[in-house]
Amino acid sequence: MASSRLLKIGLIPGDGIGREVIPAGRRILEALPSSLGLKFEFVDLHAGFQTFEKTGAALPDKTVDVLKSDCHGALFGAVSSPSTAVKGYSSPIVALRKKLDLYANVRPVKTVMNAAKPIDMVIVRENTEDLYVKEEKTYDATDGSGKVAEAIKRISQKASYRIAAMAGEIALRRQKIRQAGVPSIHKGPLVTITHKSNVLSQTDGLFRSTAREALALAKFNSVEVEEQIVDSMVYKLFRQPEAYDVIVAPNLYGDILSDGAAALVGSLGLVPSANVGEGFAIGEPCHGSAPDIMGQGIANPIATLRSTALMLEFLNEEEAAAKIYAAVDANLSEGKLLSPDLGGTAKTEDVVQDILRRL
Amino acid sequence: MASSRLLKIGLIPGDGIGREVIPAGRRILEALPSSLGLKFEFVDLHAGFQTFEKTGAALPDKTVDVLKSDCHGALFGAVSSPSTAVKGYSSPIVALRKKLDLYANVRPVKTVMNAAKPIDMVIVRENTEDLYVKEEKTYDATDGSGKVAEAIKRISQKASYRIAAMAGEIALRRQKIRQAGVPSIHKGPLVTITHKSNVLSQTDGLFRSTAREALALAKFNSVEVEEQIVDSMVYKLFRQPEAYDVIVAPNLYGDILSDGAAALVGSLGLVPSANVGEGFAIGEPCHGSAPDIMGQGIANPIATLRSTALMLEFLNEEEAAAKIYAAVDANLSEGKLLSPDLGGTAKTEDVVQDILRRL
Ligand SMILES: CC(C)[C@H](C(=O)O)[C@@H](O)C(=O)O
Ligand SMILES: CC(C)[C@H](C(=O)O)[C@@H](O)C(=O)O
Repeated sequence: MASSRLLKIGLIPGDGIGREVIPAGRRILEALPSSLGLKFEFVDLHAGFQTFEKTGAALPDKTVDVLKSDCHGALFGAVSSPSTAVKGYSSPIVALRKKLDLYANVRPVKTVMNAAKPIDMVIVRENTEDLYVKEEKTYDATDGSGKVAEAIKRISQKASYRIAAMAGEIALRRQKIRQAGVPSIHKGPLVTITHKSNVLSQTDGLFRSTAREALALAKFNSVEVEEQIVDSMVYKLFRQPEAYDVIVAPNLYGDILSDGAAALVGSLGLVPSANVGEGFAIGEPCHGSAPDIMGQGIANPIATLRSTALMLEFLNEEEAAAKIYAAVDANLSEGKLLSPDLGGTAKTEDVVQDILRRL
Repeated sequence: MASSRLLKIGLIPGDGIGREVIPAGRRILEALPSSLGLKFEFVDLHAGFQTFEKTGAALPDKTVDVLKSDCHGALFGAVSSPSTAVKGYSSPIVALRKKLDLYANVRPVKTVMNAAKPIDMVIVRENTEDLYVKEEKTYDATDGSGKVAEAIKRISQKASYRIAAMAGEIALRRQKIRQAGVPSIHKGPLVTITHKSNVLSQTDGLFRSTAREALALAKFNSVEVEEQIVDSMVYKLFRQPEAYDVIVAPNLYGDILSDGAAALVGSLGLVPSANVGEGFAIGEPCHGSAPDIMGQGIANPIATLRSTALMLEFLNEEEAAAKIYAAVDANLSEGKLLSPDLGGTAKTEDVVQDILRRL
């Protein structure tokens, strides 16, 4: 406890409400009790569509360099996608994930324990390949029927193995927390492998068999492993969400499943994520830049606060993370100061203050 | 009315509960009032995993030939996928869609009007390309890190155009039915184009721009057109399903979305589909072969009965289709004879008899 650790955190607000919620992440880190022995330094960094319009680069080299050489972690807000393709623009978060080899996108989706239908799952999404390699080409159909475009879906044994191993580790960690007495809706650790190998026997087949292999390691002996075809997974997600503990999926399915899971807990404004690599993590709320509510000061800061906690978890500061989660849960359980997406009338600032107070 | 039409229908039960529900489709066609002037002839055809085990072909040539040369439409049950890849086996329904150029997969998802949360949408899924072209390859990573597999996602202007035009036609047809006085939760026709062009700018970008082009035709003037990124679409599907009328999507997203939508109405056992080409349609319940309940006589026949009606719609027998829909809705509205997936205790046979009685 006495020893102190300095963490340097990059702050990348991005566009739209990203600018309204990322400051909340900084404030909660600054407000953590000093007994935790954590000190923070912050670096303001740029990325996003506005940055692109100003500088010609959606993800300036400087942002990547500073994160790589100087930071332990970062918070990323959200970026706006132009409504039609703009030459030279491509999503900075997708690029960042690849450039920093943040191979796992971890998305916990959880209700408070006293919810009518409690849900407590984590979606562990592969974060570097699949269709996100963005290798595309367009050509003319030989029969003169117009254009044809192709994209490559790439699945590697290496990436599939490490993401499945990460899912296994997370399942074990969650089990440890349960065993330490935290109430839970789950009996034991379960990993559900999601794929579409009934159609994509080679790519998704490789994901599936490699994930099975990784999860067959002795250390995962206590983890139950099952599979769901992605369409059926979406169906089950909505019919019996309480059944799922850890879901591991290739990039695109993970993207889709995590939005689906977010719908179950009432709002994307509640759902955090972390982009995780070796010794580095970027917290990122799952919601977008929400131009429709931007500038009104009503964005829900909870996804960002939870993403901040999640980043801390992956920097091995679990105690600090637990404090943030508890403060957020207390705000939600009481249910008095809620932002409009949750049916309340509180402003971003009201919610932040209420949660800081509970820290 | 006086004139009579003979329709030849192929029956392909497939595996598992497919064998228990397809006969219901035949029975309801035979039970249609003779005043409709329809006569039916049936041909029993084979496909599926059992067929593969017996004959070495999951989709025998004969099945394709008879459908092509001799049938107006067909009913397809469900097929079992082997739990690990079996050499030489690949999904017969995917092959059939391509061989007969059944380019649209139409999936209406609807509650009865008096439901607490009425939903009434149709998912119009492109049915011939995208990742379903199944062009895959596997190779060794150059860095020795194991295997890498790639699949091609192919999107053509031609297929995108015709599926979007089909979505537009369906939107108009639904509007006509509303204008004829059928109560509806929708004010006007709306088509929602689903894609992920923020990541896949060429493939999904082509789908999106081509769909926009098709729906800009003068005949679709009255149709409102909007877009949703696929992850956000899944989110919205669960948060405000009542907002959607017709959703058009590339193959894989359509597959995923339709299972998601099925979850909303309570059971896959309720959701029909039709695989539609020029002048030919195959009705197919959305559910799978359900080995867990096979042989117990408790499969819900409603998805098949509605698929039978849907097939008739696309064979321009809308009056006959309407009779079947009404009989099914009456059974559901009364809610006395429901199969176990809907919380009831009725057997397949009880449900079929109840619906036939209401025809
Ligand atoms: C904005 C987009 C590129 C991104 C993704 O698809 O990964 C977003 O949907 C997410 O889930 O973080
Ligand atoms: C069985 C499978 C190949 C099929 C598909 O993915 O199209 C099924 O999920 C469906 O939706 O009809």
